[in-house]
Formats: sequence, structure tokens, C-alpha cells
Amino acid sequence: MPKISNKGLSMPQSPIRKLVPFAEKAAKAGKSIYYLNIGQPDIKTPTIAMQAVKDADIEVLSYSRSEGSEQYRTKIANYYKNNDIHVKHDDIIVTTGGSEALLFAFGSIMDVDDEVIIPEPFYANYNGFSTASGVKVVPVISKIEDNFALPPIEEFEKLITPKTKAILICNPGNPTGYLYSKEEIEKLAAIVKKHDLFLIADEVYREFAYDGATHYSILQVDGLEDNAIVIDSVSKRYSMCGARIGCLVSKNKDVIATALKFAQARLSPPTLAQIASEAALETPQSYFDDVIEEYVERRNVLIEELNKIEGVQVANPKGAFYCIAQLPVKNSDVFAQWLLEDFDVDGETVMVAPAAGFYSTPGVGLNQIRIAYVLNTESLKKAVNILKEALKVYKD
Amino acid sequence: MPKISNKGLSMPQSPIRKLVPFAEKAAKAGKSIYYLNIGQPDIKTPTIAMQAVKDADIEVLSYSRSEGSEQYRTKIANYYKNNDIHVKHDDIIVTTGGSEALLFAFGSIMDVDDEVIIPEPFYANYNGFSTASGVKVVPVISKIEDNFALPPIEEFEKLITPKTKAILICNPGNPTGYLYSKEEIEKLAAIVKKHDLFLIADEVYREFAYDGATHYSILQVDGLEDNAIVIDSVSKRYSMCGARIGCLVSKNKDVIATALKFAQARLSPPTLAQIASEAALETPQSYFDDVIEEYVERRNVLIEELNKIEGVQVANPKGAFYCIAQLPVKNSDVFAQWLLEDFDVDGETVMVAPAAGFYSTPGVGLNQIRIAYVLNTESLKKAVNILKEALKVYKD
Ligand SMILES: Cc1ncc(COP(=O)(O)O)c(C=O)c1O
Ligand SMILES: Cc1ncc(COP(=O)(O)O)c(C=O)c1O
Repeated sequence: MPKISNKGLSMPQSPIRKLVPFAEKAAKAGKSIYYLNIGQPDIKTPTIAMQAVKDADIEVLSYSRSEGSEQYRTKIANYYKNNDIHVKHDDIIVTTGGSEALLFAFGSIMDVDDEVIIPEPFYANYNGFSTASGVKVVPVISKIEDNFALPPIEEFEKLITPKTKAILICNPGNPTGYLYSKEEIEKLAAIVKKHDLFLIADEVYREFAYDGATHYSILQVDGLEDNAIVIDSVSKRYSMCGARIGCLVSKNKDVIATALKFAQARLSPPTLAQIASEAALETPQSYFDDVIEEYVERRNVLIEELNKIEGVQVANPKGAFYCIAQLPVKNSDVFAQWLLEDFDVDGETVMVAPAAGFYSTPGVGLNQIRIAYVLNTESLKKAVNILKEALKVYKD
Repeated sequence: MPKISNKGLSMPQSPIRKLVPFAEKAAKAGKSIYYLNIGQPDIKTPTIAMQAVKDADIEVLSYSRSEGSEQYRTKIANYYKNNDIHVKHDDIIVTTGGSEALLFAFGSIMDVDDEVIIPEPFYANYNGFSTASGVKVVPVISKIEDNFALPPIEEFEKLITPKTKAILICNPGNPTGYLYSKEEIEKLAAIVKKHDLFLIADEVYREFAYDGATHYSILQVDGLEDNAIVIDSVSKRYSMCGARIGCLVSKNKDVIATALKFAQARLSPPTLAQIASEAALETPQSYFDDVIEEYVERRNVLIEELNKIEGVQVANPKGAFYCIAQLPVKNSDVFAQWLLEDFDVDGETVMVAPAAGFYSTPGVGLNQIRIAYVLNTESLKKAVNILKEALKVYKD
């Protein structure tokens, strides 16, 4: 029997997936589950986006341009302009989700055994894309005590080797909810310029910045044009994760020309989804205001309720819709599975993401979980209450 | 300025793209162009598929399952059953086009520097996926004199090394239009079993088999379960290239489990397109009958007209919608560009794909072009007439 590749064998399984069979079993057995484990928002997709698809009269559903239509990219550039980010349509390559933009970025700037430094905890699929690209992730620990702020820049500097090609950040952060300040971004800009590295910023949660904070993009840093690569996506912005539209943005012409070759090999991003995504750009500001208000309310409820539980420590998220909570348990993998298999309050339980999978350093984050506040406040309250009751009786 | 990766630098540019700027310039200058260079059919997408998208009432456009919904995969399995191919829904992973299925297959079974043997001329993007995966393409020349039939199996055997992991065929072939016989498939099956290799068959043109020939799938070979990986796609079958839905099919559980990890890293295939693709499975047989009739007519006209031109040799395609023609020119790259830049008949010219890009052996196929018969017979006649007139005056 022919063998799977080593690459295939070492492809990590998403930390969220491991629990899925237990959740399915619990659900089959009649348990109700509050799913706080995934980044699939319950927010309604803008009507304007879905309507555009219904209205499209398509005779032949053809390939689009590999880099996305010029019209759509021009509108994206205009969206950026409204966010005080100044790019042109040909600085943009439309991709099949932010996921594909990450894959193109990795492929365009890194060879096998090259290294990318990433503050951890980080979006777990960075591991998958690194393995697929043969690239090594070098983690820098950011701490719950510091709210997951940028680690001291010397920590990055220590890790830079001749193999280092890039620093990758997620801003605002999944799973941390941390929003980097302008000063932090400038520190990163300085270090990548000093060492001639790329700075990749995954800004798919750009809109989700709370408490009056404004998001500061790496594309706004003067003089960083050749180093900055932004990963973006419509998935969370318009609650249209299923569209599979994102983009890669850079003013570095070589990066764009190279990513375009990857884009051409796979022919084109999905056409129907591009119609929806182009229309979504017309979403009125009131939609975002409502969504942000909703998320802030959820976050406030979530953090308040979590803080009431003895032994729970929680970072206060300023963006995205995740938070990391540290629990009085030894191993949150075991705890999360136990919640699904052996615990319920009136037939209800909760599914959370054990945080170890978001760390690349072994043994770190074992007692942490990630909670996605993708449910309404009432459900969140019930879910946290279940956690509270669970922790009362749980024994490691 | 930070540097592009070697991988990025060596990503090939699609042979079709190089001419695009010249075509754009010609079009701007007012020339009409018959585009015979790309595999984008002009055939109408089945109404049933587009209507399903219009009818879908979607509140939240969510991620689908990474491997595609069970319902859709069950229907795909049923489609295969109707084609006398017996697989189950969990032998199938839904992908973002056949393109992504190729990428997942390569990643799942090959490591950096591993080798895949491919009869050439072959679909040019196999080069791109190989480069992206760090894999080496080892070509076996198939000849226009033999209609691009399978090269003698000893030619494959000679090329097998410890690094060889797979043989990849395209059946029916792009760019050759060749349809492998049952005997040829069985020869390939025997050799991959003997050497413990995978056999990947890109069967995206399965439906396009002419002159009463039936397509024989590698999934129909008894005892090849562990070796066979099929790449499939809705793009050509239902003329819905823009959907970006395909699949990877294998009865080898390890291959499926590994490809699933790649699939999970990128979250999910496009949701709207899956709705269209699921509905497309209900397309009545009459649609295919009409389409096949149309393509056969086009092929007949094309081949007949080409054969009338002195010095032109053409392989007779039995499937897909491409043919390779050998021209009395030294370099078809130069000729194809000249057609766009310097030639016209009453303001009209033609765009063809120089075939060298479909060969991996340098210097082979220089005097060949690929013609995609994706236009109606009247246009094809005019286009071939332009070629004829051009060859009368063209000087190398
Ligand atoms: C931080 C981050 N980046 C990228 C993605 C990829 O999203 P998509 O491919 O749907 O755009 C996600 C999805 O959850 C994410 O959380
Ligand atoms: C032989 C072959 N394989 C695969 C593909 C990829 O098609 P898609 O990604 O649209 O399914 C094509 C497209 O032209 C093709 O010709």
C-alpha cells in the first residue's frame, strides 16, 4: 500500500475538531449544547449581499479573473480608503477566504525550513498552513496577565535567525481578542525593517474594535510598504464565512506578482461569492454599529459572568469575538471533553475550545480555554452558568 | 527590501497568460478576437443549478463542513454509481475546484523533492501545483503521431526512482483530447501496483467522451482501491467553472483522512457554489446529450477545417474539448503573438495557446498549439480560416 507523505502525517488536526465526535454523541443523546468553540457568528449576513446573488442573472457561471475582477478590487481599495488605508486595486489579490491569502503569502515569501515568528496563542490554522508550506513556526509567548499585549520586542529579536523571513500577527487577535496599539505596531515595523523581514498582519477582525479604540493597520505605517502584507476576509466582517472570499494586500509589487502566480494556478476565486462580497461593500454603517453594539454587550456579559467564578482568570478582549479564560483545572482538553460526555445542567452543556491548540510551545495554556462569543447574551449567561456549576464538581 | 521565496520565483506562469497583454492591446485597438485559448466553455449552465441559488433563503451564509455536507457527498456518490463507479460519501472530499483537489492530493502523498510522472503534453497548472508543493514533475512524452495515446509502459518504468510517489494522468486529456482505453488504464494500474505508487486520475472531463466511447475510470479497476485517487470538478461538466467546486475521491482511508486535514485548515469549500453544484446533479440527461452533440459537431468542423490547411497536422480528439495542432512554424509562441499583434482578416484575429507550456521537456512542442473548441461552429470556421490565411503569409 503506497504511503502518505510526511507532510500529510504531520498536518495538525485543528484543536476544535478533536472534540466534535464527543459533541455529536452528546447531541445524539439529547443534550443541548451551547457552542462557544467556533468562530462562526450567528449574526445575519447583510441582506444586500444575499439579494445581489438572487438578482444576478447568470447564463454561464464563468471563471473570474484570477486576481478578482478589477471592479471588485477597485471597490475594495475604496473600502480601505474609508478606513484610512491607501492602496490601489492592483495592490490587491482576491482570494478564496483569508485562508488562501495566508497560503499565498507563505508560499510567496518562504521556502522549506524558513521560519515565521508568531506571538502565541495564535489562530491554530497558522500551523496547518505552515506545515503545508514546509515552514517552521517560531512562537513568542504572550501572557494572559498582560492581556496578551505584544511581548517585549527583545523577545522577537532573540528569535531572529538567518532562516527568519517574517513576523505574523493577528490584529485584533483570535484567540486573544487583543487589539495592538499604534505603538506596538510601530515597534514591529521597526524590527522587520531592521532585519529585512516581512510583516504579515491578519486583519480579518479589523471592524471588531471596541471601547472607542481604532484599529491601526500595518498598511498605515509610513515606510513599511515593502514589508507589509495584509490578510483580509469578508467572513467575519459581513458574517459571510461561507462565501470564501478574502484578499491579500501589499504595496510590494514583487509580492503581488508572485501571489498572482499562485492565484493563476488555481484559476479563480468563487464567482457567486464575489458578487455577494462586492454588494456587501454597500452595507450601511448602521449594520456595523448594531453588530459592534451587540458584540460589546456580549463581551461585557461574558467577562462579568466569568469573573464571578472563583479561580477563573480572564483577559479583557478589546476586539474580535474571542476571549481566553484560565480555569482552575489541570488540563482543559480533558475538562472540555468531560463537559460534553459527563456533565449537564438540566440537559444542557457547553462546548469550548481547549487553548493548548493555540499554543505552539508544548505544555503552555493547558489550563486555558477559548470562548467565542458568537451567541446572544441570554445564551452566554446560561453557558457561563453551566461552566460555573461544572467547575464546582469537576475533579482533575 | 525583503526577498520573495525561491518557490515563489520558480512558480511558473501559465502559458496562456503570457499572451493576455497582447490580446488586451489588440482588443483595445479594435480587433475582434476568437478566443480559442482557454477552457472556459460558452455552454449555458443548467438553469436548475442557478435557480437553486436564487431560491435559497440564507440568513447567515455559514461555513459548510470542511469535507462538504454529507447530503451533497451522498448525492455525488450516487452520481458515481450511475457512472458505474462505486464509492461512498466518506470516500469523497469536496474541494474548491479540481484545482484544490490536486493540491490536497499532492500534499497528502508527496514530500519535497518527491517525483510524479506525467505523460506530456499535460494541463499546465500541474506545474504550478508541483512547484507550490515542492514536488518534481517527471514527464513521459506522448506523441501527436500516436494521437497522444499512452506511451509504452516501459517508458514509465524507466523513470521510476525511489523518489517516485505517483503517476498522474488526465483522462480525457487536456490538452490532447485523448481518451485512455480500458487496456491502457489497466496497464497503468499494474505498474503502480507493482511499484507501490499512487495513480492520480484527473477525470474532470469524464462526460466528454465521443464517438460512442465510454470513459473508464481508475476507480473501476478491481484491486486498485489503495492506489487510486480521482480528481473531479463541476467546472466543465455543468459549465460552471466559476462555482469552484470539485472533489477528491479515494477508497484509501489514509488518503481521505490526510486530505481532510488540509481541508480543515482552509475551513470549507464555498457554500453558495455547493448549493448550485448539488442542484446541478439533477440536470437531465438531455442537457448532456445536447452538449455532447454540440461538442462533437464543433470537433468535426474544427478537425476537418484544420486538415484542409497545408502543413498542419492534428490529433483527432476523442474527448474533452481541446486539440493539439502542429503548425508549419518554428515557434508557436512567436506565431501566436504575431496573430494578435500583426495579423487580421477583416479586423478579426484568433488567440490560441502555444503548446510548449504544456510540455515539461524543453524544446518539445514548439511548433504546436492547443485549440479549445469552446466557440460555436460558425465562429470556429471563421477562426480556422484566419489561421489558414495567417499561415499563408507568416514567415518565421
Ligand atoms: C484569525 C483568522 N484568520 C483567518 C481566518 C480564515 O478565515 P476565512 O478563510 O474564512 O477568511 C480566520 C477564521 O476563523 C481567523 O480567525
Ligand atoms: C485537466 C484539468 N484539470 C483540472 C482543472 C481545474 O479546474 P477547476 O479547478 O475549475 O475544477 C482544469 C481546468 O481547466 C483542467 O483542464
